[in-house]
Amino acid sequence: MDISAVNALSYEDFVNTFGNVVEKCPVITAAVWSRRPFVSLNALEAAISDFIDELPESGKEGILRCHPDLAGRDLQRGTLTRESRQEQAGAGMDALTSGEAERMARLNEEYKKRFEFPFVICARMNDKANILLQLSERCQNERAVERARGIEEVKKICRLRLQSLLLTDGANKL
Amino acid sequence: MDISAVNALSYEDFVNTFGNVVEKCPVITAAVWSRRPFVSLNALEAAISDFIDELPESGKEGILRCHPDLAGRDLQRGTLTRESRQEQAGAGMDALTSGEAERMARLNEEYKKRFEFPFVICARMNDKANILLQLSERCQNERAVERARGIEEVKKICRLRLQSLLLTDGANKL
Repeated sequence: MDISAVNALSYEDFVNTFGNVVEKCPVITAAVWSRRPFVSLNALEAAISDFIDELPESGKEGILRCHPDLAGRDLQRGTLTRESRQEQAGAGMDALTSGEAERMARLNEEYKKRFEFPFVICARMNDKANILLQLSERCQNERAVERARGIEEVKKICRLRLQSLLLTDGANKL
Repeated sequence: MDISAVNALSYEDFVNTFGNVVEKCPVITAAVWSRRPFVSLNALEAAISDFIDELPESGKEGILRCHPDLAGRDLQRGTLTRESRQEQAGAGMDALTSGEAERMARLNEEYKKRFEFPFVICARMNDKANILLQLSERCQNERAVERARGIEEVKKICRLRLQSLLLTDGANKL
């Protein structure tokens, strides 16, 4: 799909296609449709990023809270979104040893207790060992630092999801 | 559930319980969890309302675009959320005559073409005849007026959904 095809989409088709580029936040996709036409994939991504940046801090925390735990209950129950399932599986989150799973669960709980939102990281840019390492390290941060860091990761996830939807072959590069 | 029980919920349970009080916008619920404790149902409702009011106009349009058409494709395909299905059925949207269905479809399209978001009305506070009348009349408004009017309706829907979740018996009145 090239950018002119994106710009021609009705809001309904736009939200159906891109509604989960920010996990479980179709309202963000639906909002940025107001800012079309987009000159490029980067412009669409920037519109999403700007919308997020303009939210109050509670809104940014709300975005983080719409994300599932890594290797958490949703993965175990099969209730992850399609995108999250693929991303978590790609990073090996569905194939942890029992020791790794126990450590991940313990650190996830510690993180959520400290920050009141879940640990968010772009799983497609990290492997299992690195995710565990970063989760452990990021538990030591201050809340404001970690909120901003989580939102940075949301944007990385968003970029890769957009690319997957738009750049299905080189000829359609935006 | 009384308000002290609401205030004791983890963000995960809070979003699981109240995540669809604004249709398909769990991020709003997840954001207002930051503002707990709430002294009453009204305070929770006010926190949601304030969050919506602070969004840019594009964000308000985004909320409206997360709503399904009345008697539209989602109803026909069975893909409405549970809340919307009940509300639309209560207003008789699943039992239109062919003439009413045709008129509703035509007016919905006219409305969306004019305003670039769907017609939103609190179905539980209106019957079939009144919904068709208001849809027809509101098609004549200016866009800014209609955006504000749609958001008013979103808040009415939110209030009734919150009440349904919280006021399951008189003894728990908040």
